[in-house]
Amino acid sequence: MEDMRAPDFPELVNGLLEDVKKVYRMSSGRVFVFPSSGTGAWESAITNTLDRGDRVLMSRFGQFSLLWVDMAQRMGLEVELCEVDWGKGVPLEAYRAALAADKDHSIKAVFATQNETATGVTSDIEGVRRVLDETGHPALLFVDGVSSIASIPFEMEKWGVDLAVSGSQKGFMLPAGLGILGVSDKALEVNRRRNKAGMERCYFSFEDMIALNDTGYFPYTPATQLLRGLRAALDMLLAEGMEQVWARHAYHAEGVRRAVAAWDGCELVAAGPEWASDTVSAIYTPEGVDARDVIAGAYKKYQTSLGTGLNKLAGRAFRIGHLGSLNPVMLCGALSAAEMALIDAGAKITPGAGVAAAQDHYRTGR
Amino acid sequence: MEDMRAPDFPELVNGLLEDVKKVYRMSSGRVFVFPSSGTGAWESAITNTLDRGDRVLMSRFGQFSLLWVDMAQRMGLEVELCEVDWGKGVPLEAYRAALAADKDHSIKAVFATQNETATGVTSDIEGVRRVLDETGHPALLFVDGVSSIASIPFEMEKWGVDLAVSGSQKGFMLPAGLGILGVSDKALEVNRRRNKAGMERCYFSFEDMIALNDTGYFPYTPATQLLRGLRAALDMLLAEGMEQVWARHAYHAEGVRRAVAAWDGCELVAAGPEWASDTVSAIYTPEGVDARDVIAGAYKKYQTSLGTGLNKLAGRAFRIGHLGSLNPVMLCGALSAAEMALIDAGAKITPGAGVAAAQDHYRTGR
Amino acid sequence: MEDMRAPDFPELVNGLLEDVKKVYRMSSGRVFVFPSSGTGAWESAITNTLDRGDRVLMSRFGQFSLLWVDMAQRMGLEVELCEVDWGKGVPLEAYRAALAADKDHSIKAVFATQNETATGVTSDIEGVRRVLDETGHPALLFVDGVSSIASIPFEMEKWGVDLAVSGSQKGFMLPAGLGILGVSDKALEVNRRRNKAGMERCYFSFEDMIALNDTGYFPYTPATQLLRGLRAALDMLLAEGMEQVWARHAYHAEGVRRAVAAWDGCELVAAGPEWASDTVSAIYTPEGVDARDVIAGAYKKYQTSLGTGLNKLAGRAFRIGHLGSLNPVMLCGALSAAEMALIDAGAKITPGAGVAAAQDHYRTGR
Amino acid sequence: MEDMRAPDFPELVNGLLEDVKKVYRMSSGRVFVFPSSGTGAWESAITNTLDRGDRVLMSRFGQFSLLWVDMAQRMGLEVELCEVDWGKGVPLEAYRAALAADKDHSIKAVFATQNETATGVTSDIEGVRRVLDETGHPALLFVDGVSSIASIPFEMEKWGVDLAVSGSQKGFMLPAGLGILGVSDKALEVNRRRNKAGMERCYFSFEDMIALNDTGYFPYTPATQLLRGLRAALDMLLAEGMEQVWARHAYHAEGVRRAVAAWDGCELVAAGPEWASDTVSAIYTPEGVDARDVIAGAYKKYQTSLGTGLNKLAGRAFRIGHLGSLNPVMLCGALSAAEMALIDAGAKITPGAGVAAAQDHYRTGR
Repeated sequence: MEDMRAPDFPELVNGLLEDVKKVYRMSSGRVFVFPSSGTGAWESAITNTLDRGDRVLMSRFGQFSLLWVDMAQRMGLEVELCEVDWGKGVPLEAYRAALAADKDHSIKAVFATQNETATGVTSDIEGVRRVLDETGHPALLFVDGVSSIASIPFEMEKWGVDLAVSGSQKGFMLPAGLGILGVSDKALEVNRRRNKAGMERCYFSFEDMIALNDTGYFPYTPATQLLRGLRAALDMLLAEGMEQVWARHAYHAEGVRRAVAAWDGCELVAAGPEWASDTVSAIYTPEGVDARDVIAGAYKKYQTSLGTGLNKLAGRAFRIGHLGSLNPVMLCGALSAAEMALIDAGAKITPGAGVAAAQDHYRTGR
Repeated sequence: MEDMRAPDFPELVNGLLEDVKKVYRMSSGRVFVFPSSGTGAWESAITNTLDRGDRVLMSRFGQFSLLWVDMAQRMGLEVELCEVDWGKGVPLEAYRAALAADKDHSIKAVFATQNETATGVTSDIEGVRRVLDETGHPALLFVDGVSSIASIPFEMEKWGVDLAVSGSQKGFMLPAGLGILGVSDKALEVNRRRNKAGMERCYFSFEDMIALNDTGYFPYTPATQLLRGLRAALDMLLAEGMEQVWARHAYHAEGVRRAVAAWDGCELVAAGPEWASDTVSAIYTPEGVDARDVIAGAYKKYQTSLGTGLNKLAGRAFRIGHLGSLNPVMLCGALSAAEMALIDAGAKITPGAGVAAAQDHYRTGR
Repeated sequence: MEDMRAPDFPELVNGLLEDVKKVYRMSSGRVFVFPSSGTGAWESAITNTLDRGDRVLMSRFGQFSLLWVDMAQRMGLEVELCEVDWGKGVPLEAYRAALAADKDHSIKAVFATQNETATGVTSDIEGVRRVLDETGHPALLFVDGVSSIASIPFEMEKWGVDLAVSGSQKGFMLPAGLGILGVSDKALEVNRRRNKAGMERCYFSFEDMIALNDTGYFPYTPATQLLRGLRAALDMLLAEGMEQVWARHAYHAEGVRRAVAAWDGCELVAAGPEWASDTVSAIYTPEGVDARDVIAGAYKKYQTSLGTGLNKLAGRAFRIGHLGSLNPVMLCGALSAAEMALIDAGAKITPGAGVAAAQDHYRTGR
Repeated sequence: MEDMRAPDFPELVNGLLEDVKKVYRMSSGRVFVFPSSGTGAWESAITNTLDRGDRVLMSRFGQFSLLWVDMAQRMGLEVELCEVDWGKGVPLEAYRAALAADKDHSIKAVFATQNETATGVTSDIEGVRRVLDETGHPALLFVDGVSSIASIPFEMEKWGVDLAVSGSQKGFMLPAGLGILGVSDKALEVNRRRNKAGMERCYFSFEDMIALNDTGYFPYTPATQLLRGLRAALDMLLAEGMEQVWARHAYHAEGVRRAVAAWDGCELVAAGPEWASDTVSAIYTPEGVDARDVIAGAYKKYQTSLGTGLNKLAGRAFRIGHLGSLNPVMLCGALSAAEMALIDAGAKITPGAGVAAAQDHYRTGR
């Protein structure tokens, strides 16, 4: 264990927090790095800027947006909820209507899950900002970027995002254990002005983090090994360049989608190309094929972990993650595993068809 | 990254939680393992069993007991606070008086820091239980065991402890990143009965953990690599036997104390042998010697991290940790570093005196 | 660095050497583990049992059997050489003729490369023993098992092999750095009786190894970290069971061969199914397709190292290794890389055809 | 396993060999890096530049110089041997006499062990060169630098050394497994001109290494992981600067010698300060104290590996290595272990005396 109070520890911490901001594309504001999962960073965003009883605008279209709504309600927020078909994402027009109707600005925050990991759906965060701007609404903009930030385009500052959550185990290519939260100057100001009667919190408090981070330290024992890993990950990401990182993810994802298109009876859960995620694909199995069989077979027979269908997708869909440190050959391997497991489970698909389609894409290079 | 939803993941989880209970010495109740520091487990203990406005009995005698009081107050508890000289620990007689006076049992919980890391003071937890029993008081007993559990005697069940906090980076010999919480059946029952109007919480909720742990999984992404490390640490601890682990820590600690006794002008912050901790020693520097110089010198010149004097001990004391995977030779090295840094900083101590005294102890074996 | 002269070091060494013998399938004789590559073990086999000017029977049908012949000649042996088309292996009938003709037993040793890594050809070692027995010839039997032992059937004792060479980086699944040599009692006896005027050697001497190994140590600094790795590898191999290990390699290899068969214009260098190796496949590219382009493309564009065509196969063939810790999904990935690189280099093969054929095999399980 | 035939493998190899030359302090000539121990590099030096029957001048004053003589004799050299008391090193005057008497230059090589690891004695290599120059003798100069190169001053080119042996596990701070050999242009020329009737060799041949290294590759599988480690070690050594590396070793060693001087009845095996090595100290135990008891006690009771007394020093001496990645605090720990083990074994030394003397030195810094 490295000494978290060593005199030269700040040399690590200072550069680290600044470089996370570069990945988030923010020049002002702050980032906080908690020893937690992304769920902890969700909670931190809420408890530091909102009060019990605050009205917030949210939408639900998958297991993770669902869980965020659940958290918001349990933390005492009054949630204005837009239900959306699983397969689509943040409903811009519904948001516009709700915000336009909120003349007295009782809605304090608007929540958007940029990438719904359960359905493989990406939402238009820039569009949410546009809706806020066009309705002249001052609410804070919360974004769940756990499976999007550091992988697909995310522009904290340009899009006016106020609180953006991510974690170490996705685009940052690290073991799980860090919850990362980007906070705009506007949100920091809200935090400073918050009613003292607001939500109790301590572990996830901004104040403590700010006080100690400003000296290059942490208010309690950080996950130092993961911080060292984060240093290495940031070096890799920034050396490649965020635009290149995003393009690489798009290139990898397209191969997977081509494979899905080549599998008879399979289709993306994402309801159209505009919704399809570049970091994870959720795939409906053909009629009569239980996705649970596909997943169990891939795991046991082919040593490959496909993602399960969560909640209402259980049995109907499986998922292939395609973010982080991957290459086309690894993806062809994963697609082979899925292909074999699908056929084993009864799907009438042509062996090799998906891999062939993916290859055709990957061969064109980028 | 291992798949946290893999069908065989519960094989890891189930045995792990059971074996943590063996280290805690509990056959009933539960343990929770959060991706967090120990501070997170503190918060979890409070928010899951207490309500805003609840009265609690606490004592303050060092930086870590101080921070716990701070957290309790910020979370909205009404703290009955016993101030104690730094160098002593939980004041049994003051606790007895407070509990005896609390005829209507308005005190819902009694807090005790078993090992105050800042002062190297160990408190008598069994004594706190005795006071509770003798006063017939039903309050819950909270223990901070971050730097004691898995190192010095701790008997969750025999001592009637209800909530006991530890972390991965001390006696469990792992990187930081796991907050571990032992919970008695009584505390679980309180949690179940809690007023729904109680404290909001989500990340650190017992309910979510219980629901998922019962199936062998976690409610959000756990720190899987650390769970694998915890498996290895538990294997080591249980193979050695907890009694042997405790004896080993006592043996190591005594050598350090002999060294301190041999350093002219130095003395333990612990106010007497009954308070001295077997996991960390805080040491007053001689008059006129700034402990900050000792620490800075040890770090820069001898590549050795001595613990800083925290809060009111700043400049007056430094600390030597002696828990976990250590041996006498490593301790003699650390004592040499301290000895050299003390002399460099102006202490009039005989070079080698401390190491000689420690050697004399270690040579007698155990 | 572990202390190679520590009192408990023999606990590692003794079990290790015994367990290597189990993998070699020998109950008598010895194994030597040198800090070297397999090439060093080749040299050890020669210099410890043969003299300059000794006549030996060898065959040449690929880069590695060629290099062994080269070594034998450079070490001063008189090599009776059977040239064989690259694509076939040890010529049993030619060996039979040479041995039958050698009435005065001037041939001191017969060499056989069990698995020619350059061509993906496996020879019939049991057959060589049969030829020796049927001609009543007493020559020693040398086997190069670098890319076969611990992967495909090898029976040191049953087949009467006298010296068998392997290395850490193939079937033992370790980093390169250990040359492993199995030696029969007969070969040990020859070593003891050897003319003192024989070949000078020191580093690779049996005598020094025997003297020290018998005490649980080594005559000079061993590669201790690799010995620890070897311990782990042996545990894995013996837990699985050698018969299962061999069956697994056959299963993996068959999928690769099915893919090759599905690639128009490609064919195995192995001249027939009886020669095809279960650990590596060398594959002729179609007419007009330079194998060097395939290999360069796979490496640069798909981050996949295909084996080069060595010596006379340069430009005409590439290789896919399929031994050690692999699974069908990894092989489908590798086949995809080869498939894409072949097409990129101009091969007229149906995209996905090879992977589909492999999948069809792997789906049937084993 | 990295691909040792990958197109970009030479990027690693070329820089590596050039940087090893910087550590050896040579701008011409070559270095060879074998997968072997240092013993292999000894053998390579001999077999590539000398013939059976060649006369060589050697000296014997410890277990390692003894083993080198043994190797030379077994390889067929005619050894002119100077016996020296164990505790001294290369006898310059005896060498001068032998070389002056060798009017017809029948002595082909002069061997010198720069640092005799068994006795902790450093010889004057520059002095050997002076003797050669002053007698006008053209013999090659062989140096065993296994425990000296990369730790104490060694000047391949300035001192006119022709063949210099080292290994990965000493000054290069790596696991064992690489034998490193520096070769002067003069020795390379001798190798090229060597009588073809000379010593057989293949694994350790210069020719093969030269042919392949010139293309950035190796003639057989190298220990790639160790080559990556060597890259890191070279970066560390060259960043610090060889003069600083040497000074650091002198500083560390002096502390150990001060400790020995403070131990009543102990003394260095080195017969005077001019012989004392900066990388290892061999220490006579007091009369009546069996060094084997000291070593066994340190290992079992204090988990510390002291070096054994080898050959005629068995029972009379133990050794403390002090080269590589160490600091004063680690050395104080090791000295404590030795001190405790000495007292346990019956030595009448003042507890802490040695550590105190070492501290006194380390405190003065450098």
